[in-house]
Amino acid sequence: MKKTQLGPRTLLYPMPAFLIGANVGGKPNFMAAAWSGIACSNPPMLTVALQHHRFTLRGIKENGAFSVNIPSSELVKETDYCGIVSGAKEDKVAACAFTIFYGVLKTAPMIEQCPVNLECKVMHMLYLGSHALVVGQIEEVHASEECLVNGEPDVKKINPLIYCTGAEKTYYTFGQRLAEAFSVGMEIKQAKP
Amino acid sequence: MKKTQLGPRTLLYPMPAFLIGANVGGKPNFMAAAWSGIACSNPPMLTVALQHHRFTLRGIKENGAFSVNIPSSELVKETDYCGIVSGAKEDKVAACAFTIFYGVLKTAPMIEQCPVNLECKVMHMLYLGSHALVVGQIEEVHASEECLVNGEPDVKKINPLIYCTGAEKTYYTFGQRLAEAFSVGMEIKQAKP
Repeated sequence: MKKTQLGPRTLLYPMPAFLIGANVGGKPNFMAAAWSGIACSNPPMLTVALQHHRFTLRGIKENGAFSVNIPSSELVKETDYCGIVSGAKEDKVAACAFTIFYGVLKTAPMIEQCPVNLECKVMHMLYLGSHALVVGQIEEVHASEECLVNGEPDVKKINPLIYCTGAEKTYYTFGQRLAEAFSVGMEIKQAKP
Repeated sequence: MKKTQLGPRTLLYPMPAFLIGANVGGKPNFMAAAWSGIACSNPPMLTVALQHHRFTLRGIKENGAFSVNIPSSELVKETDYCGIVSGAKEDKVAACAFTIFYGVLKTAPMIEQCPVNLECKVMHMLYLGSHALVVGQIEEVHASEECLVNGEPDVKKINPLIYCTGAEKTYYTFGQRLAEAFSVGMEIKQAKP
């Protein structure tokens, strides 16, 4: 299997398409972000990377709080719009007709139309170059009741987006259930003498 | 849209299913990781969170280097196996019949069978609780030539896994191409007066 070198680039598959929320000057604003992931299990933490000039980053610093909203595929236009324009120029909440709610942190705005919302308290901020890496502790998770099966989120009902980076910047949907984790690999373990 | 509170939990959709590689005592080892994401564009950096007792983390500290290997869906068994057993007990490279290669860092082992491989130099390490958050600078990206179209990775040819967290821990495939990013949202922008 011959390998080609593509240079040092941010090529990961999959990447998410989240809407990061913060109050800026007391007004809710949201930006699209794919540079994000889980950072710790206990306590639960996640990372979001934002360019230093982002309007949303200003709000995160003002409040020490932000939200991660997981849009369903039906919100692909709204998600993309929130990645194209700045909250300094347009009222994105009005343009997208988002309904806003607040949780335990009081200052992390969340989008009711997104099936899953995580509110986070800022724990660390690393200045890494083009981006500030924000490490946030997940204080509460809110889920739309339509997405729950036996009280747990069902990914098919959430119907989340995948962001595809590289030459072709594209949104994808989730595909098929492939295998059970912490289970399918036992075949290899059991095959050992 | 009524919301239910699920408590502070690590619920993000999608999450990746990567194989993190490091030499431990000079021998290549790999573990499955879903706690990962991009941290910076320029220079390109990513995060991986590992529990402190992980055998792979020992190797990352020994070398200040690691790899992120993106398995295709065909490698779901091998990926899951690398998440179930510890390299302290089993030779995962032998069990999975992985072919190993090295790149510019010389000490970050990579899996030839994975269509995309990123080699990373450790830049920061944050001790966050149950996990160490490793921030690595991406030094080179290697891609299997079968996955390239016009010199760029094609996600359909990579056929990457998605890890689904929560009550149902499951691997999914990518679904359908939904919309072009930095484009589909222009409809909302243009609709404004």
